[in-house]
Amino acid sequence: MSDNRYMRLALSLGRRGQGQCWPNPAVGCVIVKDGRVVGRGWTQPGGRPHAEPVALSQAGDAARGATVYVTLEPCAHHGQTPPCAEALIAAQVSRVVVAVEDSDARVSGRGLAMLRDAGIEVETGVMADEAARDLQGFFLKTDLGRPFLTLKLASTLDGAIATATGESKWITGPEARREVHAMRMRHDAVMVGGGTARADDPSLTVRELGGERQPVRVVVSRRLDLPFMGTLARTARETPVWIAHGADADANLLKAWEDLGAELLPCDLHGAQISPVSLLQALGAKGLTRVFCEGGGALAASLLSADVVDELITFNAGMVLGAEGYPAIGAMGVERLAEAPRFDLVSQRSVGRDVMSVWHRIEPH
Amino acid sequence: MSDNRYMRLALSLGRRGQGQCWPNPAVGCVIVKDGRVVGRGWTQPGGRPHAEPVALSQAGDAARGATVYVTLEPCAHHGQTPPCAEALIAAQVSRVVVAVEDSDARVSGRGLAMLRDAGIEVETGVMADEAARDLQGFFLKTDLGRPFLTLKLASTLDGAIATATGESKWITGPEARREVHAMRMRHDAVMVGGGTARADDPSLTVRELGGERQPVRVVVSRRLDLPFMGTLARTARETPVWIAHGADADANLLKAWEDLGAELLPCDLHGAQISPVSLLQALGAKGLTRVFCEGGGALAASLLSADVVDELITFNAGMVLGAEGYPAIGAMGVERLAEAPRFDLVSQRSVGRDVMSVWHRIEPH
Repeated sequence: MSDNRYMRLALSLGRRGQGQCWPNPAVGCVIVKDGRVVGRGWTQPGGRPHAEPVALSQAGDAARGATVYVTLEPCAHHGQTPPCAEALIAAQVSRVVVAVEDSDARVSGRGLAMLRDAGIEVETGVMADEAARDLQGFFLKTDLGRPFLTLKLASTLDGAIATATGESKWITGPEARREVHAMRMRHDAVMVGGGTARADDPSLTVRELGGERQPVRVVVSRRLDLPFMGTLARTARETPVWIAHGADADANLLKAWEDLGAELLPCDLHGAQISPVSLLQALGAKGLTRVFCEGGGALAASLLSADVVDELITFNAGMVLGAEGYPAIGAMGVERLAEAPRFDLVSQRSVGRDVMSVWHRIEPH
Repeated sequence: MSDNRYMRLALSLGRRGQGQCWPNPAVGCVIVKDGRVVGRGWTQPGGRPHAEPVALSQAGDAARGATVYVTLEPCAHHGQTPPCAEALIAAQVSRVVVAVEDSDARVSGRGLAMLRDAGIEVETGVMADEAARDLQGFFLKTDLGRPFLTLKLASTLDGAIATATGESKWITGPEARREVHAMRMRHDAVMVGGGTARADDPSLTVRELGGERQPVRVVVSRRLDLPFMGTLARTARETPVWIAHGADADANLLKAWEDLGAELLPCDLHGAQISPVSLLQALGAKGLTRVFCEGGGALAASLLSADVVDELITFNAGMVLGAEGYPAIGAMGVERLAEAPRFDLVSQRSVGRDVMSVWHRIEPH
């Protein structure tokens, strides 16, 4: 029971690093001596230091003989920092409780073996499901080469994101929009389609929440037909803008956007659109672990059709636009209910005057 | 405080009559003597006896000197039964607590005056908002001549009620469908458009919930082009079927449906459709106080455009159909967000694997 309690604390500390520490996993660590928490740590902005050395330095001499709760297996390889497993051994802790093992081949099982060889008691699997969920982006990147993908849809009661004439400000209320900013901060990147970038001229930054690192702004635009005078173009040198484009994009446009400070990610096509699989592989190769997609309808439909949306977050406002409303999800070519992408309801609550629901991808059997 | 507690009990008893006692209001009554509940009553199926005589007959002699909690002002006029105010006076109760006054001109204030003239202490306004909500259908019928209208929409995450090819079974889960049956039972009538009657061949009855009275089945079909071999046609003599039609409906069809046992309600047109205002006036004139509309998209759009939907209940399933999905709400001609009908969120919860949200009409200022 108390192992779970301390691991829950470590998990909540770990989440503070989400969106701030990519390409590294957002790990949390708690050190407990004689029933007292003597050290807390989480992966720092940029990915270093790791959670364990932060907690160890806070604990100081109190770490000797203490129990360490860490959400991910301590690293065992010499990278840019000495391995955390070595640091724990040097600090003479007596017990290490781990939520999930690393799937990185350089670490997997070796961190635990190092600890055990040094005579430290090691326990694994404490709150493993929660940890696996929090760290899913890191595992997906390591195992499949792609980040965790969250898709947010903010619509009317009947699934519209704008009137037929394109008016969209505002459907959901200020509380829902604030919640979206908090979600952006917990992701490494915010992504929209070219149509949304043209229609809304969004800044896609996190405001008024005091995060150290802004999420990367990713725009998916096969032909790079984005406004040069827009907010993203103007601010590409302040906060990263990455543009995923097709190989057939105009060379002058590619050059122009590079000169504005954007980074270019060439992707394969799937039919007439950027391939969602190629897109996510490109983002994973750049080190992203968690991507937050905010539409529009065509990009959402493409990602849903490719079955790569891990979490879907819907906000529904108490407003009705009818069949002429602009749909939150574009054409998908689904003809039978059996072909429709399905999601499991995780939670729902009111946010201001809107309903927010969280849905998870149903894993194929 | 304890007045509220007993009135809450009276309100919950009153709700047992919803859908069962039209054209009368579903009233609840609790009689309390020396801190003990000695009588409970609610308006009986068909509307008689009223709640007060039921509770008085249960209380017997214990009613003398007791306090009576009743959700609506006791009636004062000699109708098919002697007035409830007289019955309370005859039983020599000492105090009557009322939630809301009646708005029926034959009663309004007169029931209370009769009680006071007889020396009974009278208090009003206890839990008045809740009572006004529960009895809103009765008040709307009395004041505006139309019933309370609930619109239910069961759709995918993105607002679709069927695939483009018409497949709709099932989008929401069994728990949501059971909840819908319970909602039908608490309304006087269940209403669908002609398109839904043709596409789904629904029975629109309440199953497995043991209500005494089935809701009236109302079909809105301008031209009466409904299948003669369908479930509604076959069962029209067992459970009432009312068909709201335009004056231009074919005389032979009118005759045929009358012969099948359906009741015909001629309505005015609004453009090419049945006028929602004329429709609701016709239903109110027949005595309905609470109507539950289950779509389809064209009827829902017409009712929403006319601003006559008092309560909107949405069920959202974890499924996505994209822009080709058949929309829950048809074309409404809304061009600006400012013109869109708006609703206040009252509650939301999960029902099985679906999200159910309840929204109330925002009263014009």
